[in-house]
Amino acid sequence: MNYPEAKERKEKSKVVHELDSLFKPKSIAIIGASSKELSIGNVILKNLVHFGYTGKIYPINPKEPEVRGIKAYPTIFDVPDNIDLAHVIIPSKFVPQIIEDCGKKGIKSVIINSAGFSEMGEEGMALQKSFLAKAKEYGVRIFGPNCQGIINCDPEYNAYCDFTFTFPKPGSISIVALSGGVGAFIMQSLFDLEIGMRMYASNGNACDISISDVVNYYGEDEGTKAIILYTEGFHNPKEFMNVAKMVAKKKPILAMKAGRTEAGAKAAASHTGSLAGVDIATELIFEKTGILAFNNEEEMCQVAMAFSTQPIPKGNRVGIITNTGGPAVIATDELVSAGLVLPPLSERAKKILKETMLPEASIGNPIDVVATGGGKHFRSALDVLVDEDTIDSIYINFVTAPFTDTDEVARQIVEVNKMKKKPIVCNFMTNLSMERYQVTTKIMKDGGVPCYAFPTTAAKALGALYKYHKVRSRNIGEAKVFSGIKKENALAIINEAKREGKSFLSSSQVYKLLTQYEIPVADWRIANDVDKTIQAANEIGFPVVIKADAESLVHKSDLGGVAINLKNVDEVRATVEKMKKKFDAKDLKFFVQKFLPGGRELIAGVSAQRGLEPLIMFGIGGIYVEVLKDVIFKIAPVTELEAKEMLSSIKATKLLDGVRGEKGIHKESVIEIIQRLSQLVIDFPEIQEMDLNPIMAFENKAFVVDARIKI
Amino acid sequence: MNYPEAKERKEKSKVVHELDSLFKPKSIAIIGASSKELSIGNVILKNLVHFGYTGKIYPINPKEPEVRGIKAYPTIFDVPDNIDLAHVIIPSKFVPQIIEDCGKKGIKSVIINSAGFSEMGEEGMALQKSFLAKAKEYGVRIFGPNCQGIINCDPEYNAYCDFTFTFPKPGSISIVALSGGVGAFIMQSLFDLEIGMRMYASNGNACDISISDVVNYYGEDEGTKAIILYTEGFHNPKEFMNVAKMVAKKKPILAMKAGRTEAGAKAAASHTGSLAGVDIATELIFEKTGILAFNNEEEMCQVAMAFSTQPIPKGNRVGIITNTGGPAVIATDELVSAGLVLPPLSERAKKILKETMLPEASIGNPIDVVATGGGKHFRSALDVLVDEDTIDSIYINFVTAPFTDTDEVARQIVEVNKMKKKPIVCNFMTNLSMERYQVTTKIMKDGGVPCYAFPTTAAKALGALYKYHKVRSRNIGEAKVFSGIKKENALAIINEAKREGKSFLSSSQVYKLLTQYEIPVADWRIANDVDKTIQAANEIGFPVVIKADAESLVHKSDLGGVAINLKNVDEVRATVEKMKKKFDAKDLKFFVQKFLPGGRELIAGVSAQRGLEPLIMFGIGGIYVEVLKDVIFKIAPVTELEAKEMLSSIKATKLLDGVRGEKGIHKESVIEIIQRLSQLVIDFPEIQEMDLNPIMAFENKAFVVDARIKI
Repeated sequence: MNYPEAKERKEKSKVVHELDSLFKPKSIAIIGASSKELSIGNVILKNLVHFGYTGKIYPINPKEPEVRGIKAYPTIFDVPDNIDLAHVIIPSKFVPQIIEDCGKKGIKSVIINSAGFSEMGEEGMALQKSFLAKAKEYGVRIFGPNCQGIINCDPEYNAYCDFTFTFPKPGSISIVALSGGVGAFIMQSLFDLEIGMRMYASNGNACDISISDVVNYYGEDEGTKAIILYTEGFHNPKEFMNVAKMVAKKKPILAMKAGRTEAGAKAAASHTGSLAGVDIATELIFEKTGILAFNNEEEMCQVAMAFSTQPIPKGNRVGIITNTGGPAVIATDELVSAGLVLPPLSERAKKILKETMLPEASIGNPIDVVATGGGKHFRSALDVLVDEDTIDSIYINFVTAPFTDTDEVARQIVEVNKMKKKPIVCNFMTNLSMERYQVTTKIMKDGGVPCYAFPTTAAKALGALYKYHKVRSRNIGEAKVFSGIKKENALAIINEAKREGKSFLSSSQVYKLLTQYEIPVADWRIANDVDKTIQAANEIGFPVVIKADAESLVHKSDLGGVAINLKNVDEVRATVEKMKKKFDAKDLKFFVQKFLPGGRELIAGVSAQRGLEPLIMFGIGGIYVEVLKDVIFKIAPVTELEAKEMLSSIKATKLLDGVRGEKGIHKESVIEIIQRLSQLVIDFPEIQEMDLNPIMAFENKAFVVDARIKI
Repeated sequence: MNYPEAKERKEKSKVVHELDSLFKPKSIAIIGASSKELSIGNVILKNLVHFGYTGKIYPINPKEPEVRGIKAYPTIFDVPDNIDLAHVIIPSKFVPQIIEDCGKKGIKSVIINSAGFSEMGEEGMALQKSFLAKAKEYGVRIFGPNCQGIINCDPEYNAYCDFTFTFPKPGSISIVALSGGVGAFIMQSLFDLEIGMRMYASNGNACDISISDVVNYYGEDEGTKAIILYTEGFHNPKEFMNVAKMVAKKKPILAMKAGRTEAGAKAAASHTGSLAGVDIATELIFEKTGILAFNNEEEMCQVAMAFSTQPIPKGNRVGIITNTGGPAVIATDELVSAGLVLPPLSERAKKILKETMLPEASIGNPIDVVATGGGKHFRSALDVLVDEDTIDSIYINFVTAPFTDTDEVARQIVEVNKMKKKPIVCNFMTNLSMERYQVTTKIMKDGGVPCYAFPTTAAKALGALYKYHKVRSRNIGEAKVFSGIKKENALAIINEAKREGKSFLSSSQVYKLLTQYEIPVADWRIANDVDKTIQAANEIGFPVVIKADAESLVHKSDLGGVAINLKNVDEVRATVEKMKKKFDAKDLKFFVQKFLPGGRELIAGVSAQRGLEPLIMFGIGGIYVEVLKDVIFKIAPVTELEAKEMLSSIKATKLLDGVRGEKGIHKESVIEIIQRLSQLVIDFPEIQEMDLNPIMAFENKAFVVDARIKI
């Protein structure tokens, strides 16, 4: 049996089935089980037992009759049973043979904990290739090598196939982490925050089962409510995008990519080896696929608490209940910064609250029930907000004031929380060293209320729930495929340039190519002597631009090879004569173009990415690009909505609408140019770089005035 | 005795002495002590006793012989002793009389916990004024009203004069918070993070003792190593700035101001009443005085942990020690984002490490001692970094790997930490539910190592230490006072405008005023008919600009009242005739100015602030201000360094150096204009608004071409 390449696997449901042997094994062999305390082969066995693994465990050890009191077998062939999953914890040089054995034994998944492979240079890489060939031959899926393993907290399995030391409570958050160190502390953080975990996977060198495979598996897993992802890059970004796009529609993916600074990336390279990263594009991958990106892993873990218990809000309108002033101010700041709004209460709501609240309470949004407010006051405020049509979510500040029955307040919050009508987060300020408040805290936590120790933190969590609402409701649509494109002509032009051994297309090739994709260009001619240039200018109509065009001239304008606003035949003649003297090139031609004064200078560009579709760039030309770096990137193919977003999300976007009495530009034309550009570079992956610079945009049209294409 | 106004108090040392009765009382009366459980008059007494107050407590209660087992007195006059401090917990209407009694008894400080004053409208405000008058008469300092109180954890006092429920360990962080709710949870957070506290103060309505007074007191207090400040605005920003500037040079002030969004400010107003806030300027106040500003109170508390134990680094060069890969990548990202750098190790250091580290260790910066690295490996890495001249601080990732003696690692870190040679922060990843790691944790914490649960958090803490290094080393200098200024002439011009009842100065007044401060303006004349205008143009030299000038014309250019680039007498004549027809104003005059084409359009401005010196604004004119809001503000007086910073910190600062072959501008001239502008508005607080728009800047000079001044 020949093992199919990851990218060829189309039936993802089949993949899910395959990974069941990894995440839901009914029997596990530990190849390299050891009696030596603190050795990995001992710790994994201990962890499996300690965590209450429900399947069968088969320690494999050629010398010991038993390990940690469990009967051991000299080889896997001696095990009188089927084995779903094997841990491999033996020196790397023996691994290829063992994988072959696993294949012969019919083992479906193998976690290779051992190190000494691709992370260790060429020799290790050869070993990795060798065992991978065996695995493919026998249809064994490999997790790792040089990895921690997996954990499944589902009580049906309790599979702790890992040597870490945190034993999570079962829950609904699943983690996948490239770095075991980071994965382990994220798991620990969820544990410390009393957030239940569903599954965990840290796949080290990830030679076969990829992060994409795991995310896909979590996506299909009903018990997983939200996914936490940590990575330092992607082996196969395209595959990841396909999976992430699909999964993020179903459940939130909270992700962090480290190595976002140059020094960080360097540190990443030193410990993960040669990960074919697509660094610049990670943020764009997250944005395009609808992943919630974090730069702060603490925030990511805290946010997970809300995702694990709360419904997703239907909009951005939040109601605040507080029993203390300042924290409501802090929360309001953060909520508003996250794009939420605090609508005023309805008259109906105010009427109810006037009757139910203490006289010193503040009736508005925030509702301040004051520190002496008790359970019934909180409850009334909660009921009012749940009933308000104009409120999508509820934020609570609850300080356990000594003057009130805090347990009763907690019970009321929990009761409303359990209705799951609207998401609730709580900034719960208490002193856990006092027994009285330990009781209150237990009521809150058992009741599934996400409790935070700081108002900003609670507000950030609600902000993230809202962000996921936006992500899920955003539909970028499919990229438009323009009809009438002359792709074959375009291919011919590119092939011509290739035949000529060019890396940059000539001006006439560039303009012809754009024309095949109906990207509007200023009317042009090409001529090779004075008379023909004059003729061309006459055809186009004055004023014109003339550009010297020769293989050797890439940065024409810097060299004096561009003359603008030539108003008549005499000026054209003089210019051509001058250029002929200046550029003594055999292949010198003259590119004649209509001169279009006024208009707004825009820029669009393309840069090819290894392993990913090209990036499309848009910005306002000149100083805005050069000094302010005010440009937007998107990964191709760019849809109409995305192209619109590109125009509206540059900082100087108002310039496109016209300021100081200037007229705005015809945005539709520019949006179409971006989409056609996207289609062109998707069709021709050989295009490495491309600049449409400038695009001149006017009130009723826009077209490309100069362009550069590198293949 | 007449109590001096806060701003008149110049001898701050005297103030410090005064507040000793508040923070270091030897005897405390509780006026309104109550036997009723959970009443404030009971809780405060309970807290004082529970916290081990070392002084004498005198409950005052007209009916009870004792409260909570302590002898009570019917009135303060019955107490046979001096009283340093009194709590007042009685209905507001009785407070003025009680304050008079306190004065007569010679009580120096009073904490008024009772509410019902300025926060409750006019009637309450009248009561507040009334007791304040009594306090001033008798020289009693008032803390509050409507406040929590103070806490002093110094074991010499153990003064818990507050009704909150967190009992901190003694330490070196002092807190002052406008909002008791926020103050209490910050105190709780320090407690949860096991950070010792020194003093606490939450002063509610703050009618007498201000946040500035408290910050000043903490500044003088030797036991306070760092200050945490929470506020929603300042009653007297100038006073605060003077104090903060002085204190921030001595010790770090970590501050957060809530109400930074419009909705947040609204929420603040609803619970603190009419606080004369200077909202827009808070960030600038923090920047100018060297306060470390936070938008996230959780981060602020976590950072405090590092400040409470670590020295301040001498520079931005950090060395990383890690025993796990991923967290080092995350830390590097955050450290670099905070402005730190990771220098390479010296050959000497590498040589040592090659000998001492495990073979699989990674020798560089970060130093990866790997998960199996033990105490001696960590110690060698620490020693190397302590010895490296090129390293100012140390960041550690320490995951308590099960394969190693984690206690020994902790002991080695603690030993180096205790040397206090360089600041150390530690991302300490462990599982506190395991006894083994509880021991390791205790070693770390007892050893004063700031331990964080996340790499980003630890890195942020180190970033803050470095930021304080920068703040402390930054000397903005004194504002230059230019000689040769004709202040009396300027006064005469402003008085003239006042006499004329103008809110906007006329063009000629504007230019004359600028000239008195030697702010360069384009050569100008004013004329009231065609002939005189032509004469003026001839004197100035062509080309010229002509602006119609009349009381009724503020936005001249919008109305067609400006004509530029007039090249000869005929053009001037035509223009003046046209303007005369267009503007049928009696007082119509013609402002003639040299026309200066080219150059870079800049803008500078001034806006007066209630309670604060005016804000000075600088930016590049035109689109940069209008569309990109690319402007910088500073509080006057602006020093030379600050003016330079204004030029260099706008986003488009590169434009000032010249791009695309353009020449740069003469920055020195612009820097001088900003400083002279600052001096002008400091001298004349009646100037409400002022725009120098544009300032035209050239390669060798810069001058004001148009200006507007509102008084």
